[in-house]
Amino acid sequence: MNGFDTATDTTWMSPEQLELVRAQVPIVYVEAVPVRVDALGNVTKVGLLLRMAADGSISRLIVSGRVKFGERVRDALLRHCEKDLGPLALPRVPPSPAPFTVAEYFPHPDISGFHDPRQHAVSLVYVVPVDGECQPTQEALDLAWFTPAEVMSPAVITQMTGGQDRLLRLALAHVGQLP
Amino acid sequence: MNGFDTATDTTWMSPEQLELVRAQVPIVYVEAVPVRVDALGNVTKVGLLLRMAADGSISRLIVSGRVKFGERVRDALLRHCEKDLGPLALPRVPPSPAPFTVAEYFPHPDISGFHDPRQHAVSLVYVVPVDGECQPTQEALDLAWFTPAEVMSPAVITQMTGGQDRLLRLALAHVGQLP
Amino acid sequence: MNGFDTATDTTWMSPEQLELVRAQVPIVYVEAVPVRVDALGNVTKVGLLLRMAADGSISRLIVSGRVKFGERVRDALLRHCEKDLGPLALPRVPPSPAPFTVAEYFPHPDISGFHDPRQHAVSLVYVVPVDGECQPTQEALDLAWFTPAEVMSPAVITQMTGGQDRLLRLALAHVGQLP
Amino acid sequence: MNGFDTATDTTWMSPEQLELVRAQVPIVYVEAVPVRVDALGNVTKVGLLLRMAADGSISRLIVSGRVKFGERVRDALLRHCEKDLGPLALPRVPPSPAPFTVAEYFPHPDISGFHDPRQHAVSLVYVVPVDGECQPTQEALDLAWFTPAEVMSPAVITQMTGGQDRLLRLALAHVGQLP
Repeated sequence: MNGFDTATDTTWMSPEQLELVRAQVPIVYVEAVPVRVDALGNVTKVGLLLRMAADGSISRLIVSGRVKFGERVRDALLRHCEKDLGPLALPRVPPSPAPFTVAEYFPHPDISGFHDPRQHAVSLVYVVPVDGECQPTQEALDLAWFTPAEVMSPAVITQMTGGQDRLLRLALAHVGQLP
Repeated sequence: MNGFDTATDTTWMSPEQLELVRAQVPIVYVEAVPVRVDALGNVTKVGLLLRMAADGSISRLIVSGRVKFGERVRDALLRHCEKDLGPLALPRVPPSPAPFTVAEYFPHPDISGFHDPRQHAVSLVYVVPVDGECQPTQEALDLAWFTPAEVMSPAVITQMTGGQDRLLRLALAHVGQLP
Repeated sequence: MNGFDTATDTTWMSPEQLELVRAQVPIVYVEAVPVRVDALGNVTKVGLLLRMAADGSISRLIVSGRVKFGERVRDALLRHCEKDLGPLALPRVPPSPAPFTVAEYFPHPDISGFHDPRQHAVSLVYVVPVDGECQPTQEALDLAWFTPAEVMSPAVITQMTGGQDRLLRLALAHVGQLP
Repeated sequence: MNGFDTATDTTWMSPEQLELVRAQVPIVYVEAVPVRVDALGNVTKVGLLLRMAADGSISRLIVSGRVKFGERVRDALLRHCEKDLGPLALPRVPPSPAPFTVAEYFPHPDISGFHDPRQHAVSLVYVVPVDGECQPTQEALDLAWFTPAEVMSPAVITQMTGGQDRLLRLALAHVGQLP
């Protein structure tokens, strides 16, 4: 659906090929917690997509996606932010390549607390301030912004699966905003 | 023109008071390495002020200043960026309160490699992307932007004192741009 | 036997001097969250002291103390770990000088969520694995070890004041152990 | 004796399978910079293996290896440290899952400065203090310890390939020991 699915893209894999690879090695992912910040750098809002999660449920999710063969981590981070938040989001990819945490998703839910029935994914997670106008793309039903307090409320947490609520707590702790 | 000079500022200290305090405890500082970044977060330029350093020499320096009593670290970071880079610099104070390194300045030059003849300063150092127009304030003679390669060249390094060249290497390493 | 008590220590300050300085500048602190780790680096236990907190209450606390004039941050961290955990604790001071977070304590409780009625303290906070035998020193009534789940339980959290429970959540998030 | 060689290990892949997968997705790696530290956490020595690098040359290298399907990052880090440094090395896997940097190795040498002709690898890099006795395993010809100054000397740097010298500079900067 996006430009990466064209025949000229040599990193393209068929769903069958991807399934085979996923059974053999961990897959590299990037995830971005989209945030609004004030002039002092304080996180004022956290953005969450509403869409189908890896387990098939309709869930609140952060930006997430695979790093392709030959692609830089930064490029993957920008590509997935633009794919999920729209072309006018103006994400601020952090200058440092080090993620604030690494989330390890396993097909079995009890290994790490992060769960993805499709695969073993090693996900580099970043907090990404976004300055521009965001709009959910066709894959997402909604994009909503919550304060750090709201995002930790039961009403929002119960809409998250696979450990995404825990990942948000880690992100808020990293920015010193965990209540 | 900054807060240090106004009578209404209750955190004001006379030069004599500050000198007395400096002889008794380490002083909290913040430092910012001002950078230009591209859409992918890569550092493309590093900004250096030309002004009088703590040792009295005319040197290339990053943004630096004291945290005042009652002041948040974020507020001090923004205040010093605006003081040194001008009111239109639009500095992007990082969301995380953790500095990428801590520089310990001592009156004796051989203790840590960071040297400030006036005091023992514990400095929290951040990389701060700036988006806006920067102009040196009256205290600075010049503000110049260098590529990561240029900033590590002998021509620039020899203009730095007190360990500021080493601090720049640590900053470039942190953002993965050390050659 | 530590530096605070000897007349030959030039960094000694009388209580009156310290009180004067505390009214004028933020004071540099280090804090250490003492942890037991397994061979894989997983935090299995968190150590908490029971002693008089800054507000006069008997509280559960992490290791904490001032950085003295002329003292390296590493030296202060080791000194306070040995002071609070005993001389056989074998603390593992981290190789990187960067704290995982900065806690800003203010005399007013509402500014940052970290509260110290005596002073404005800027505290560099580290997670410090300890391998040896720990014993509370005379200032502490007790030293107890809790699992990450226990330390987040209401029974333990209600024994903490000044924001120390929040600091523990930030530490557990940093090591990926926040439930 | 490691997992790659046992028939009962379901994550085993034949060299042909691995080659196919490597042509399709980036491979998750961990790397460890083995260090000796003093009681204050200062890095005093860096350990380097002498062995065949990915490009076929005999080079100075840090500990490195693949994360297997179903394996935690911590387990992979411990496994490769023990494989490369021997069973008595007592590596101290860091409590935080976040690497200090991410090194992206590409088949083409000019993309990132990190080069691996066999594959696109995304490598999570950690500084790992080792306390025990280290001995190179049969794959390595030698294991030698260098001071931070020595490791940056031309004599050592010229023995490194693929960007490993740069990775060492980033590691030394992270621990505040870059000269």
